[in-house]
Amino acid sequence: MVGFASARVEKLIREAGAKRVSADAITRLNEVLTDYGMTIAKYAVEVARHSGRKTIKESDIKLASTK
Amino acid sequence: MVGFASARVEKLIREAGAKRVSADAITRLNEVLTDYGMTIAKYAVEVARHSGRKTIKESDIKLASTK
Repeated sequence: MVGFASARVEKLIREAGAKRVSADAITRLNEVLTDYGMTIAKYAVEVARHSGRKTIKESDIKLASTK
Repeated sequence: MVGFASARVEKLIREAGAKRVSADAITRLNEVLTDYGMTIAKYAVEVARHSGRKTIKESDIKLASTK
């Protein structure tokens, strides 16, 4: 699954120093970041529920991303 | 640094099961994903250079993201 705009992902790769980027490379990084983001978000939702909250707070994301 | 559209990041958190999401949580996940994406992209650029290429290929991203 791809969750972000291709142009944003391409920009990030260019900012990292790339002269040219294949379309497949952009799609692949988009997938990797979407998967990673979903993993963090799912854990953050669990953490918030565990704390009896329905709102995901910054601290939930922080905790989830350092898991 | 924040590299993605807030609406996309929020959508991802909602798809993970969140009922409500704070603005700070969205910003934090955006930062985490931007940093992770930049780390992968920089390593992919190094890998491509090492192979004598100027074009970042899917396999460079794949290798960099499993580092």
